Amino acid sequence: MANTLSNEKEVPAFGWAARDSSGILSPFHFSRRANGDLDITIKILYCGICHGDVHFAKNELGRHINYPMVPGHEIVGEVIKIGSNVKKFKIGDIAGVGPICGSCGKCSHCSKSWENSCPKTILTYNGHDYDGSITYGGYSNKIVVNENYAIIMPKGLPLEGAAPLLCAGLTVYSPMIHHGLCQSGQHLGIVGLGGLGHVAVKFAKAFNMKVTVISTSPGKKEEALERLGADSFLLINDQQQLKEAKDTMDGIIDTASGPHSLHPLIDMLKTCGKLILVGASITPPVLPYMPLMLGRKIIAGSAAGGMKESQDMINFAAKHNITADIEVIPMDYVNTAFERLAKNDVKYRFVIDVANTLNVSHID
Amino acid sequence: MANTLSNEKEVPAFGWAARDSSGILSPFHFSRRANGDLDITIKILYCGICHGDVHFAKNELGRHINYPMVPGHEIVGEVIKIGSNVKKFKIGDIAGVGPICGSCGKCSHCSKSWENSCPKTILTYNGHDYDGSITYGGYSNKIVVNENYAIIMPKGLPLEGAAPLLCAGLTVYSPMIHHGLCQSGQHLGIVGLGGLGHVAVKFAKAFNMKVTVISTSPGKKEEALERLGADSFLLINDQQQLKEAKDTMDGIIDTASGPHSLHPLIDMLKTCGKLILVGASITPPVLPYMPLMLGRKIIAGSAAGGMKESQDMINFAAKHNITADIEVIPMDYVNTAFERLAKNDVKYRFVIDVANTLNVSHID
Repeated sequence: MANTLSNEKEVPAFGWAARDSSGILSPFHFSRRANGDLDITIKILYCGICHGDVHFAKNELGRHINYPMVPGHEIVGEVIKIGSNVKKFKIGDIAGVGPICGSCGKCSHCSKSWENSCPKTILTYNGHDYDGSITYGGYSNKIVVNENYAIIMPKGLPLEGAAPLLCAGLTVYSPMIHHGLCQSGQHLGIVGLGGLGHVAVKFAKAFNMKVTVISTSPGKKEEALERLGADSFLLINDQQQLKEAKDTMDGIIDTASGPHSLHPLIDMLKTCGKLILVGASITPPVLPYMPLMLGRKIIAGSAAGGMKESQDMINFAAKHNITADIEVIPMDYVNTAFERLAKNDVKYRFVIDVANTLNVSHID
Repeated sequence: MANTLSNEKEVPAFGWAARDSSGILSPFHFSRRANGDLDITIKILYCGICHGDVHFAKNELGRHINYPMVPGHEIVGEVIKIGSNVKKFKIGDIAGVGPICGSCGKCSHCSKSWENSCPKTILTYNGHDYDGSITYGGYSNKIVVNENYAIIMPKGLPLEGAAPLLCAGLTVYSPMIHHGLCQSGQHLGIVGLGGLGHVAVKFAKAFNMKVTVISTSPGKKEEALERLGADSFLLINDQQQLKEAKDTMDGIIDTASGPHSLHPLIDMLKTCGKLILVGASITPPVLPYMPLMLGRKIIAGSAAGGMKESQDMINFAAKHNITADIEVIPMDYVNTAFERLAKNDVKYRFVIDVANTLNVSHID
């Protein structure tokens, strides 16, 4: 069904935007597209800070960045307006928006709810919206989105801790489901204990898997075992531990984004084991060719997920009381948060308390 | 059930062996283990020459080679003796032996008929047999093998053309089945038109798939399309052809063993497409990281297959009249054949006519 605008007007909005590749954010005034008859307008309550936000703001991924750019794709808020044909939401509902806010809705990808793989997928920020305008993310007071690209936030899930699930949670949950790494008793390795990794541990334990956190930092051992409930902890530089872990894992979710060898990871997998890469590594690794062949193993990549997976993920999280571990910050702390995030100085995700700290008085 | 030897004696045998890393073969006299009560003795009729035979004979893969080494793991022959507990074969049956001739029979791999992944798998040559002796391959007059590691050759399949299926055929058939790349209407790319590639085309067409042969050699186009029945042919160095092939294939079987980039191959895959590496590349390629992630694609490795897959493969080949395209050679042509194979100068597999050309008079 086509989205029509009838007599609606553009929605005035404000937020914080990066102006150039310094990545420094400052207050910014802009417009959202008018609320069409399939759209909802959300008053944003919380928005998580994804590491990708920093990469985009600083233009570190070699893409075209449309400055001023308002980041943010871990958005939770209250529905304050609905179009005349909206069916899924009513005023006052709590909705979530993740990394994408649109797609063609017709192609083979969309028909499987792989909207994130649609060639016409619309990124929630720095994308081109249906009307050709640039999309702005969730470091802002309001967003207008087609209801099919918003998810229903289950009642009872704390919203600030749920916000990061919309990207970080989806990024690890989607491949776990897609590759069958979600079965009770399976042994899952999780590389890296950051925004993605710590949520992966929680999902894996909710699936009743045996979880080994794989890290370069001995300091993360206690955290992994005591607080997050992982079953074991493996230091990737310890040859004895690597030897003992050989051929023991059904799968590995690799969330590390820095350069690292895949060889020891492949060796930890059982025959037919699966190594899933979800961290945005800028330096591509060498393929561990012979161990991959002889062990009949696979290396898969995965990025975010589709809308059905997003809703399934958040429902599963609500059922198992899974939220991200977060540090809630005010809007005007965002530049400091970016600096700290670049140094991995957060456990484990910053979430901006948008509703209470983004003031129009910030705007020049 | 344990294999016992009762009063059997070692079996005298002769064949051709490499004596050192020159890889030059010459006549050789040796013994096979005695025929135990679970064993069959096979009079070898034909043996295919796998490219791996050349690598092993010349010690090009960095493994320990036990010279004198008798290569050959594409063996077809007549059962001339059976042990007292043999159930699958009777005297006069035609049996086949592929790359492995034993495994532990008890582990989790063996219980799934992934005998090729068993930690105690016994290679058909240059391996350590159950009794600790070195195994010798099929460039020889006889072989003694546990019946569980021999397959029943279906009636009606020409034996000389079937021999190469026992390694080359299995190597491409196994991952096609394992990864679901065997469905009517799917589009399969096959990289390289050699011993493995030409058989992969035949299997894929028997599965009623759309087949594109991917090659660096324009000269192979007519062969691929006219004689082997591929649906299309793609020159990997032609940018326009690459562009047109983007996002079109469900899977690719990559049989190329020389150094080559995986990037264009990943780009040819549809979302969730699968690139299967089966060629023994000595230079590991760089992993095309971002395209893998954004397209949710996988890279898998595969080497040979298990015993059930071997029997299934040969039964499927018989049903669809699939054999390898071969050049039958006498035993004393083997050194020339090795030289020609190193230059890819064969369409597509050499097969030694062992029974008619291996003479005891060769032996010093």
